[in-house]
Amino acid sequence: MADSQNLEVKIDNPEDSSQWQENEGSSDENSKWYTKTILQSELADYSPVKGCMVIRPYGYALWENIQQALDKMIKDTGHQNAYFPLFIPESFLNKEKEHVEGFAPECAVVTHGGGKKLEEPLIVRPTSETIINYMFAKWIQSWRDLPLLINQWANVVRWELRTRLFLRTTEFLWQEGHTAHASEECARNEAAKMLGVYETLAKEFLALPVLTGEKTANERFAGAVNTYAIEAMMRDGKALQAGTSHYLGQNFAKAFDIKFQNAASQIEYAYQTSWGVSTRLIGAVIMGHGDSFGLILPPKIAPIQVVIVPIYKTEEEKVMVLDACSKLANELKSTLRIHLDDRDGHTPGFKFNHWEQKGVPVRLNIGPKDIANNCCEVVLRIDGKKIQKQPLADLKNYLTELLDQEQKRIYDRALAFRTENTVWANSMHELEEKLNSHNCFVQAFWSGSTEDEVNIKQNTGATIRVLTKHDKKGSCIKTNSQTNTVAIFAKAY
Amino acid sequence: MADSQNLEVKIDNPEDSSQWQENEGSSDENSKWYTKTILQSELADYSPVKGCMVIRPYGYALWENIQQALDKMIKDTGHQNAYFPLFIPESFLNKEKEHVEGFAPECAVVTHGGGKKLEEPLIVRPTSETIINYMFAKWIQSWRDLPLLINQWANVVRWELRTRLFLRTTEFLWQEGHTAHASEECARNEAAKMLGVYETLAKEFLALPVLTGEKTANERFAGAVNTYAIEAMMRDGKALQAGTSHYLGQNFAKAFDIKFQNAASQIEYAYQTSWGVSTRLIGAVIMGHGDSFGLILPPKIAPIQVVIVPIYKTEEEKVMVLDACSKLANELKSTLRIHLDDRDGHTPGFKFNHWEQKGVPVRLNIGPKDIANNCCEVVLRIDGKKIQKQPLADLKNYLTELLDQEQKRIYDRALAFRTENTVWANSMHELEEKLNSHNCFVQAFWSGSTEDEVNIKQNTGATIRVLTKHDKKGSCIKTNSQTNTVAIFAKAY
Repeated sequence: MADSQNLEVKIDNPEDSSQWQENEGSSDENSKWYTKTILQSELADYSPVKGCMVIRPYGYALWENIQQALDKMIKDTGHQNAYFPLFIPESFLNKEKEHVEGFAPECAVVTHGGGKKLEEPLIVRPTSETIINYMFAKWIQSWRDLPLLINQWANVVRWELRTRLFLRTTEFLWQEGHTAHASEECARNEAAKMLGVYETLAKEFLALPVLTGEKTANERFAGAVNTYAIEAMMRDGKALQAGTSHYLGQNFAKAFDIKFQNAASQIEYAYQTSWGVSTRLIGAVIMGHGDSFGLILPPKIAPIQVVIVPIYKTEEEKVMVLDACSKLANELKSTLRIHLDDRDGHTPGFKFNHWEQKGVPVRLNIGPKDIANNCCEVVLRIDGKKIQKQPLADLKNYLTELLDQEQKRIYDRALAFRTENTVWANSMHELEEKLNSHNCFVQAFWSGSTEDEVNIKQNTGATIRVLTKHDKKGSCIKTNSQTNTVAIFAKAY
Repeated sequence: MADSQNLEVKIDNPEDSSQWQENEGSSDENSKWYTKTILQSELADYSPVKGCMVIRPYGYALWENIQQALDKMIKDTGHQNAYFPLFIPESFLNKEKEHVEGFAPECAVVTHGGGKKLEEPLIVRPTSETIINYMFAKWIQSWRDLPLLINQWANVVRWELRTRLFLRTTEFLWQEGHTAHASEECARNEAAKMLGVYETLAKEFLALPVLTGEKTANERFAGAVNTYAIEAMMRDGKALQAGTSHYLGQNFAKAFDIKFQNAASQIEYAYQTSWGVSTRLIGAVIMGHGDSFGLILPPKIAPIQVVIVPIYKTEEEKVMVLDACSKLANELKSTLRIHLDDRDGHTPGFKFNHWEQKGVPVRLNIGPKDIANNCCEVVLRIDGKKIQKQPLADLKNYLTELLDQEQKRIYDRALAFRTENTVWANSMHELEEKLNSHNCFVQAFWSGSTEDEVNIKQNTGATIRVLTKHDKKGSCIKTNSQTNTVAIFAKAY
């Protein structure tokens, strides 16, 4: 009787990331791996509409789990969801100068409706500052109306030339927060608070250790005073911007006339923020954790946390094994997202590969001998580690703890990888040398100019991902002046 | 000491529906009441984009509660959520002849993207049969791939000339189910099952007693073989179509080449369904339950189920009362959606009106005497009934039961209203007379033609809302032939 062990196929070293790391210099190989992983695991598919993708059920379930976690945090911090029109009159976009310059080249434009040419073209929202702030002006009169804390879950459209599944698509799903406050301090606190919410989401749910900090003027949101971001390191050493929070000052308030009477009866413009994360987070999870076998999904957001693969040879065994597996799945389904792979016509080996590709954190192999011994075999996705023969009794508590442990291990693995691939540079020469040697994060004291950044990008392909503050001061590698600002340089998606 | 009682403002007979009923003949008065109720209760607001509305937080929370209930039922019946592109190539719409005839006049068209004229214009989806079925053709090869049961939560756009908040807006939110099956029987069962899901949603969550049945050819979905609907009676006696489920036969499968190899190895076209409900359901709830004081919301979907209004006069009382109310709200918030109205600068009377307008099912008035007696006053929204002095101890269980009771009372009230306003017609003369006398549902045995329907509409403004089956046969009021088909005639939104 074979039971599960002999049927194990290429599980000994599923973390064959060496193979993938070898190819890190070749963006083509990474790119192929990324696309293949998405298509094979059925997260998404190409659509017949240029630059637009179809999010398949497995990918959408992942998004729903991310949404659910974030939505709760957004509500717990006092925000309310609402919904604003998809279409924005063209004239609205023109009201904030920097905003229109940033977004006009990316717009999809509706020129006809109901068989007629429209008097004013409508823009399909690339982001909703303009339409939402138009409404804010209507709703806000007094300091009593503030803060106004609104969030929207929606689709947005940006006409991208180079598109990539989840990372950069013409249409994508996101949430966009828009708030108005009675003082600069309140608005700045809000921008910082929501950056913190994104950091928590990334760390605790996506198992991604992110860096937080401010963007340079170069990468600031069109119309913002300050843009803050969370940045994650992908398994190829490149950076991915995973979420942004903007302090908008009074820029949009002035453009849209959002005024309020303050407690001293004076009229003031409101202070504002906006912040958003998108389906790009799924791309971050894929590239932040995956290996050559496919996806590795953190248990907290995995659509399937535990998969049961029944193992049998004869019809008699099949009946017995499937019966026991069904009972087990039913027992566990109230506490875990569990799936029993009872498909006929596929070997256990095929199923092992299938669920490894799909990144299911924990697999239970159950054969006739296991049932006789009242146990099962547990296999962990990260490293293919097998935990020999776990008793079926009290499996619920065991798996709950195991999933917590795996969530932590996935985070620790990503953190260790980032730590290994983060270095300091004490001179411009060192910076460029390190950035050109392999994909990594290079830290350096920095007070350089936008022009200096552009030069570095030309020489290395890397940009400043975020600016952070160090406890001590050091010499800027470009200007030599003393500063406690540290720039994180990296090549980015 | 006044406590809550003396501060009660016009609560004695909040169900002043007589006033509203008086005006039922005047659609203007109803229309004004409907719009005023939506704007005052802050469910939605007009946007600067023609025909598009803003769903405000209170309205969106209502939508989220409806979504949550329906999404669970959709998943429990084996469907998976996914997401397909907003844009549909113009050529796709042309592939199903009836479909394009039905939707082309309502389309919003994107002609420019990224600053350039597009080679092929893109339609903003009015519904997603075409784009989804294109993908289905890619995913379906064998009977093993069937049934394919997909649902999408999305925004859609239909260029409407006459728009009305929630009922008919250019952009609206909805879910659209799309399924493919290996046999006609399976697909027909699916269409019936989802009609049943909508019926359950309407009855159990929205407290709306709906009729179910088939639509006549006249009102069939463009491209469907059969269209089934749930129809609700509004408080003005008119009908509102609240959801539809379509059996599509092989129409779209042939247009999009969705073929599969059946178990006997023959190639067949798939059999399909689609079904949807939208933010129109919010319109149904407003008009199906509301009275002259504003909204009446069923507890199961109400954003706020219980509101606490603290009552005090002196600063000392205020501190004591607010403290007790906060404690109570905190105790109850894990089981109920509760809100403490602790706003300063508004009288209790103002607050009573405010929450009546917003349709909160249960209100607790709490003043110093109540606290001294360890009790509170309970006021029910439907009829303004006061339950004198409920002990604070065990309020949690009491309120849970009370909300269940109120849910049922709102349903029973709507059912009684529909029963009162539903009559039989035994002749064409009777039919037209009854339809012209007042807004009501008129039932009649029916085997008439499309032309007969059109004539009735011209004479009365009413249409056949659904066709149902009676246990016994009777004479068709038009053709005199024996039939067990009963048509429900009514004026409709």
